[in-house]
Amino acid sequence: MKEDSPYPKSVFGETLTEHSGITELMDDLGEALTIGKDRLRMMGGGNPSHIPEMQELWRDRMAELVRETPDEFDRVMADYDQPAGSPAFRDAVAGFLNREYGWDLTRKNVAITNGGQTAFFFLLNRFAGLMPDGSRRKILLPIVPEYIGYGDQCVSGGEMFDARKPLIEFTQDHRFKYRIDFEHLNVGPEHGAIAVSRPTNPSSNLLTDHEIAELREVAAANGIPLIIDNAYGLPFPGVVFHDVEPVWDENIILTMSLSKLGLPGTRTGIVVAREEIISEIRSMTAIVGLANNNVGQALARPIIESGRVKQLSDEVVRPYYQERSERALNMVHDSLPAHIPWRVHESEGAFFLWFWFDGLPGGCRELYRKLKDAGVVVVPGEYFFFGLDTADWDHAHQCVRVSFTQPEEIVRDGFRIFGEVLGEVYHEM
Amino acid sequence: MKEDSPYPKSVFGETLTEHSGITELMDDLGEALTIGKDRLRMMGGGNPSHIPEMQELWRDRMAELVRETPDEFDRVMADYDQPAGSPAFRDAVAGFLNREYGWDLTRKNVAITNGGQTAFFFLLNRFAGLMPDGSRRKILLPIVPEYIGYGDQCVSGGEMFDARKPLIEFTQDHRFKYRIDFEHLNVGPEHGAIAVSRPTNPSSNLLTDHEIAELREVAAANGIPLIIDNAYGLPFPGVVFHDVEPVWDENIILTMSLSKLGLPGTRTGIVVAREEIISEIRSMTAIVGLANNNVGQALARPIIESGRVKQLSDEVVRPYYQERSERALNMVHDSLPAHIPWRVHESEGAFFLWFWFDGLPGGCRELYRKLKDAGVVVVPGEYFFFGLDTADWDHAHQCVRVSFTQPEEIVRDGFRIFGEVLGEVYHEM
Repeated sequence: MKEDSPYPKSVFGETLTEHSGITELMDDLGEALTIGKDRLRMMGGGNPSHIPEMQELWRDRMAELVRETPDEFDRVMADYDQPAGSPAFRDAVAGFLNREYGWDLTRKNVAITNGGQTAFFFLLNRFAGLMPDGSRRKILLPIVPEYIGYGDQCVSGGEMFDARKPLIEFTQDHRFKYRIDFEHLNVGPEHGAIAVSRPTNPSSNLLTDHEIAELREVAAANGIPLIIDNAYGLPFPGVVFHDVEPVWDENIILTMSLSKLGLPGTRTGIVVAREEIISEIRSMTAIVGLANNNVGQALARPIIESGRVKQLSDEVVRPYYQERSERALNMVHDSLPAHIPWRVHESEGAFFLWFWFDGLPGGCRELYRKLKDAGVVVVPGEYFFFGLDTADWDHAHQCVRVSFTQPEEIVRDGFRIFGEVLGEVYHEM
Repeated sequence: MKEDSPYPKSVFGETLTEHSGITELMDDLGEALTIGKDRLRMMGGGNPSHIPEMQELWRDRMAELVRETPDEFDRVMADYDQPAGSPAFRDAVAGFLNREYGWDLTRKNVAITNGGQTAFFFLLNRFAGLMPDGSRRKILLPIVPEYIGYGDQCVSGGEMFDARKPLIEFTQDHRFKYRIDFEHLNVGPEHGAIAVSRPTNPSSNLLTDHEIAELREVAAANGIPLIIDNAYGLPFPGVVFHDVEPVWDENIILTMSLSKLGLPGTRTGIVVAREEIISEIRSMTAIVGLANNNVGQALARPIIESGRVKQLSDEVVRPYYQERSERALNMVHDSLPAHIPWRVHESEGAFFLWFWFDGLPGGCRELYRKLKDAGVVVVPGEYFFFGLDTADWDHAHQCVRVSFTQPEEIVRDGFRIFGEVLGEVYHEM
C-alpha cells in the first residue's frame, strides 16, 4: 500500500502511520500466512502453534457456549462489556493468582485490554512522553533487545525509550546469554517507568529472580513502577524453560495474555496492578474503544476459575514449546556451518531463537532480505534495539529473531536454507 | 474505583484517564447490566437489542464454524490477522458495497479496527491535535450534539473539536429537528477534517442528502476529508427510518460497524477510504494492538459475500428498531405530562430518543441524578455538546438521551417513571 498521504499529519499521525518495524513484521507475517503460503517459510512472526489439545479445548468450549448456554453466547456477542472487562473473568483471574501465589488481589486489581500490546500502548503513553509541564519522560529499558512492538507506540513524538546495553555472557560453545548491567542503569527523574518482558521477546532471555528483585528495589526507590510483560510467562501460558518466581506488588504492573494459550485471534490482554492503575486502564479502554471484545474472556473463564489453566500450561503448552525449542536447536547445529561465528541466545522461554552473527557481512537487514529471497522470513534484529544509539555497537546489527512455532517440516526446511544463505554470506566476505 | 494516582501522568494519561462522559456512561451501563440488573432500567447505553433472528443467525454461524469447518475455527482463534483485517472479509465488504452502490472499491479501500470507536480514535488524532510544526488542528463538527465517545479522544491535550450550533426547526407538536447552519460553518486552515455521524448518535438526526452534498463540497474545497460515522447507517445495519443515499468518494472516510447487527461483543469496525488512509489505519492497528480480533469478521463474512446482510438489514433490523421507536414515542406521549414543555427530536434512525426540556429546572445533570435515584438510567445531554462554549446556550443543558432498545416492559416502565420525575421537577419550579 502507498505510504504517502494527501493530507497533513498530526504528530500522532506521523508516529503511528509511518514505516515501522512492527508494520513490516505484520505485513510479512500476513503475506506469508495468506498470499505467499506455499512459497514462504514464515519464521518471523509470534504466532502460536496450533497445539491440538488447546485447539480442541477452545472448540469444545465454544460448542458448549453455543449449544448448552445459548443465552450466555448471546450475551457474549450482543452485549457491550464493562470497559475494565467482565467482572466474572476478572474475579476468576484474581482468585486464581491468589491461590497460586498467595497474592491479595480482587477484581479491582485486574483489567482487560484488546491484547497485551494495547495494554502496553496505554501504559507506555500514560507514564512517558510529553508531560503537562512541557517536559518529557522516558521508559527505562534496563536491557535491550526488547519487544519490537513497543518501539513505535509513542503518541507525542520524539524518543520514548532510554535503553541500556546488556552484559553478554558466553555460556557455552555457540551460545550466549544477556544480563542486566546494573552498574550502568542510571535511573533518573526523566524516567516514568521501568519496563521489561519476561521471558523477553525476542531473545528468550528469562530475567533471574535476582535481577527482578533488584529492578523492584530500584523502581520503588525512584517512585516509578516496574512494568513486566508476562505474555509468555507464568502461571499461564507458562512458556518458560526453567524455574523462576512470578512476583507482584503495588508498584508492579504485570501484563498477561491469552494469545499464547492459542487465542491470539480474540485479542485478550490482562493487566494486574494497583487499583488506581486498573481504573486508568478502564478509562483508556472506554475512550479508545468503548469496551473489549468478550470472546476470549468467555472461552477462558472456566479453566481459570477451576485452575485447570495451570495444569494445561505445565503439562501441554510448556512441554510442547520446550520440545520445539530443543528440536530447533538440534536443527540449527545440524544446518548452520560450524566454521561460521554463529551464536544463539540460551533458549529460556517464548517462541524464538535469537541469533548473533559476529562480523556479519552486510548486517542483519541484508541477511533478512537474502533469506526472504530464498523463501525464509525472519525478523532483522536491529528493530529490537530501540531507545539506544547503536551506531557504534556492531552487535545490534548482527542479530536476527527466528520463530520455531511453525510446523516442524517448515522449521527444518527453514534452517536448512538459513545455513545455505549464511554460508554464502560469509563466503562472499 | 479511585481516580487519584500515585504516579505523575503524561498529557496522554491526563486526557485519557480522568473522569469523562464516556467513562461515566460505560460504568452506568456496566452496573445496570450486572450488579443493578434488577433495580435499574437501563436506558442510557447504546447496546443493541437481542433480536431473535439475528442472535439465531450468529449462533448458527458459530456452530457451523466449530462443527463443519473446524480448521477455519482454529485459524480464527489461533492466528494473528493482518493488521488491515482479513483479506477475504475486506474483499467481501468492497464487493458488496460496489454491487449495492456502484462504487469502485477494492480491499485496499477497506480496513478493520477493534470497533468503530477505535476507528474514530485513530482518525481524529491523525487529522487533528498537535501538528509537527507546533500548531494545532481541530475537527470541525458542523453540528452538535454529536457522539459522546469522540469527546475525550484527543491524545495531545487541549480541545480537539470546533463545533457549530444547529438550527432548530419546530416540526410538529412536541417535536423538533436539527439542521446544519451552513451560514456559520466557517471552515478554516485550523481544521484538519469535518466529522459527522449519520444518523447521529444521540439525536437520531439523519443529515439530508442535500446537507451531505454541501459538506462534501466544503471539505473538498478546503482540502480536508469528510469523515462520516455510519455505525447505524446504510447499507447495514440500516437503522434509518427514511430514504437517504449513502455516498463515498476519495475525500470521504466512511466508518461502519458490525455492532448494531448484534455483534458489539466482537468489536468489529470497518473503515472505507482511499488507499493511503487505509494503509495508515493498518499501521495504527499494528502499532496500537498488533492485529484485530478475528471473530466478528469470520461470523459476518458469508452474509456480506452473499448480500444477505442487506435483506436482513431491510427486513429484520430496520423494521425492528423502527417499530421500537414508534412504540417508544407512543409511550412518551402517554407518560410525559402534556403541560410540560417537552420536545423530542424527530426519530430518524439509531436507538435513541433525544429529549429537549425547555426551561428545565436544575438542568439535565440534575434530572439524570433524579432519574437514576428513581431507577432509570439515561444520559445527560451536556456531554454531547463538546467543542463549543455552551455557557450561554440553555438548550445544551436541557437535553437527555434515552435508549429504546431494552425489552419493552423496561422501556414502558422507564417512561412511566420518567413522566413522574419530570412532573415533580417542573412542579418544584
